[in-house]
Amino acid sequence: MNILVLGGDGYLGWPTALYLSRRGHHVGVVDNFARRGYDLEMGVNSLVPIVTLQQRVRRWHDISDLTIDVFVGDLTDPVFVGDTLASFQPDAVVHFAEQRSAPYSMIDRKHAVYTQVNNVVGTLNLLYAVAEQDRDIHLVKLGTMGEYGTPNIDIEEGFIEITHRGRTDVLPYPKQPGSFYHLSKVHDSHNIMFACRIWGIRATDLNQGIVYGHETEETVLHPELATRFDYDGVFGTVLNRFCVQAVTGHPLTVYGSGGQTRGMLNILDTLACVELALENPAERGEFRVFNQYTESFSVAEMADLVAAEYVGNAVIDHSPDPRVEKEDHYYRAAHTKLLDLGLVPHLLTSSVIQSILAASDRFKTNVDVAAILPTVQWRSTASDLATAGTPSRHLADLGRQSVVPSP
Amino acid sequence: MNILVLGGDGYLGWPTALYLSRRGHHVGVVDNFARRGYDLEMGVNSLVPIVTLQQRVRRWHDISDLTIDVFVGDLTDPVFVGDTLASFQPDAVVHFAEQRSAPYSMIDRKHAVYTQVNNVVGTLNLLYAVAEQDRDIHLVKLGTMGEYGTPNIDIEEGFIEITHRGRTDVLPYPKQPGSFYHLSKVHDSHNIMFACRIWGIRATDLNQGIVYGHETEETVLHPELATRFDYDGVFGTVLNRFCVQAVTGHPLTVYGSGGQTRGMLNILDTLACVELALENPAERGEFRVFNQYTESFSVAEMADLVAAEYVGNAVIDHSPDPRVEKEDHYYRAAHTKLLDLGLVPHLLTSSVIQSILAASDRFKTNVDVAAILPTVQWRSTASDLATAGTPSRHLADLGRQSVVPSP
Repeated sequence: MNILVLGGDGYLGWPTALYLSRRGHHVGVVDNFARRGYDLEMGVNSLVPIVTLQQRVRRWHDISDLTIDVFVGDLTDPVFVGDTLASFQPDAVVHFAEQRSAPYSMIDRKHAVYTQVNNVVGTLNLLYAVAEQDRDIHLVKLGTMGEYGTPNIDIEEGFIEITHRGRTDVLPYPKQPGSFYHLSKVHDSHNIMFACRIWGIRATDLNQGIVYGHETEETVLHPELATRFDYDGVFGTVLNRFCVQAVTGHPLTVYGSGGQTRGMLNILDTLACVELALENPAERGEFRVFNQYTESFSVAEMADLVAAEYVGNAVIDHSPDPRVEKEDHYYRAAHTKLLDLGLVPHLLTSSVIQSILAASDRFKTNVDVAAILPTVQWRSTASDLATAGTPSRHLADLGRQSVVPSP
Repeated sequence: MNILVLGGDGYLGWPTALYLSRRGHHVGVVDNFARRGYDLEMGVNSLVPIVTLQQRVRRWHDISDLTIDVFVGDLTDPVFVGDTLASFQPDAVVHFAEQRSAPYSMIDRKHAVYTQVNNVVGTLNLLYAVAEQDRDIHLVKLGTMGEYGTPNIDIEEGFIEITHRGRTDVLPYPKQPGSFYHLSKVHDSHNIMFACRIWGIRATDLNQGIVYGHETEETVLHPELATRFDYDGVFGTVLNRFCVQAVTGHPLTVYGSGGQTRGMLNILDTLACVELALENPAERGEFRVFNQYTESFSVAEMADLVAAEYVGNAVIDHSPDPRVEKEDHYYRAAHTKLLDLGLVPHLLTSSVIQSILAASDRFKTNVDVAAILPTVQWRSTASDLATAGTPSRHLADLGRQSVVPSP
């Protein structure tokens, strides 16, 4: 298959590109390096060093003799999107190319607008290009379990049968997203569903849980094939953060009571799920939703797991929740469709946590401790991280080196 | 009350501004004249002549001795939004300022992206300005009944109680919008609901049906106080279009079977509903949805009504539906909340249709017949109306005067 991986320089996009390349697909990677730009903006970095996309692709060719095509450009540029599809002629497009951090989207107005415009317009341009060039292209789009929020009933996979006043219909599952980022994914889902209906496009929306881990069969083949490992307060995910806090001797910071429960999955299962979706494409005109996670944990449970695995002494600290979310709630979400297609989950075992702790320890001299704590507050309209044309005051506030001279 | 009417130069914004001004409120009008720009782009015009906003406001002052403040600018400019709110200090903001034509949003990619970015970003900027300056400001936002689509169960007002696998919750009503325009309103609704939750803003989302009529107690006081009357295939609404077709001796064109059923309301009820919402504001943090329509009709029923009222011979013609929508479907939508607040509907009586026919007849020399027929096809990605830097081929196709010289 010709498979175009959008956002193929990112945390999940890069391992996905490698995985699909190794399985014999002709892979093209599209990226605008926005993710690396956020690092520069925030003054943070992947804990595990990563090389340039061009070097990654060269290294992969040295090791595997396989070629990955590179397209550098921005999905909000419709000419680039059209030209790339016309040139690569994909059978399927795997779309990771969105701003994917909830805290980043909540920094201030500018970041909220950027996130929604970037994500929604990129996806609209892609939908139009597919509709114009080849409606058989299978769009595999990364959504998020966070689109659903935490309703007091079971979450289903995209749609729910509702009986109301004696009549019944199957309708899109109601969405209660919890950040301007999560909202952008809800907007995308609605737009894609509509495009499938009017143009007969095939689409699979993978409502993914929180991914942990950073090593895959391909990335471990050479240090230059490594993917990112984020632990900071803006882009880092909770399990990575706890492991980094443990190995650097800092308390594991649980936001609020820690009863917030979320679906999680191993990075290896992200790859397997994308492959299952590709091998079993949606029908023409079908908008299909898979809930892509394997287990759910509360934040407090995750902290306990990490503390139990860590050989040293890990203290758990509860700090006020910077987000607006329920700290104690019902959570049960269907996730059988990918299992039915053959997914065999890699669960959050002791050895998985040990491997994340080991990576954290190996690179702990790279840790910027001041970057870990939450700086973005949902209830305020502008965080100290706001960076538009003003000196980065937060850096000084946090005791880090100021990168902008005072006026 | 200090009331800011966004989009106050438009079809409904202008009569709303007059109505609220006459009732003793201090009214400010915000507009970027985008609506007049669409006329220029499409080469069409309001059937009823309208004067400039500045002249309208002067005429209103001459007649009533009342002053309406004018702010010319664009909601996608956050500095303008912030400055305007800071200067006017509104108690409430009535937000009509969005691109509101489904066919316009479906012309091509450019128009779809414009519609979503314009509507979503304008509303995001407004939400941030309210959150930053005064969270007591009541946001009265125009949504649309079209957000719901045509589910096979009763439509409720914004939220629905769902019992599922033995548990019950009240959740946002599932949305199945039918154009990139309608989708933009769904995106807005989700964004506003979230802003109410995190910032404690008060918001009323008026999911309005299709409005008919163009005369109000205020607009009839002088020809220069008139509001727009649109009958063209892109911005005209169905009842206006049928009346114009009747008086010009053309068949009333029903799309498909005409079984498409929609909620409708008189322009006088739009004013009354907005006033009721303003007088009974949402609570702090409340996202409240009212379904704002009074009666529902199928398109075929509306054609029959107009044909029956017209003194001459009106022929009804069925043409293929340019949209992707169900032509025969269940439709029952709750709309009791505004009635409970005291709305006394102006129904679609014989005399109302006669008054629209009379206006159509009075200005029938202004009618551009070629502008009436549908030119935008939902199933195609680019209509003949696409205007970006290319000669307007559709004008020639339709036998109208070409406004762009051939290369």
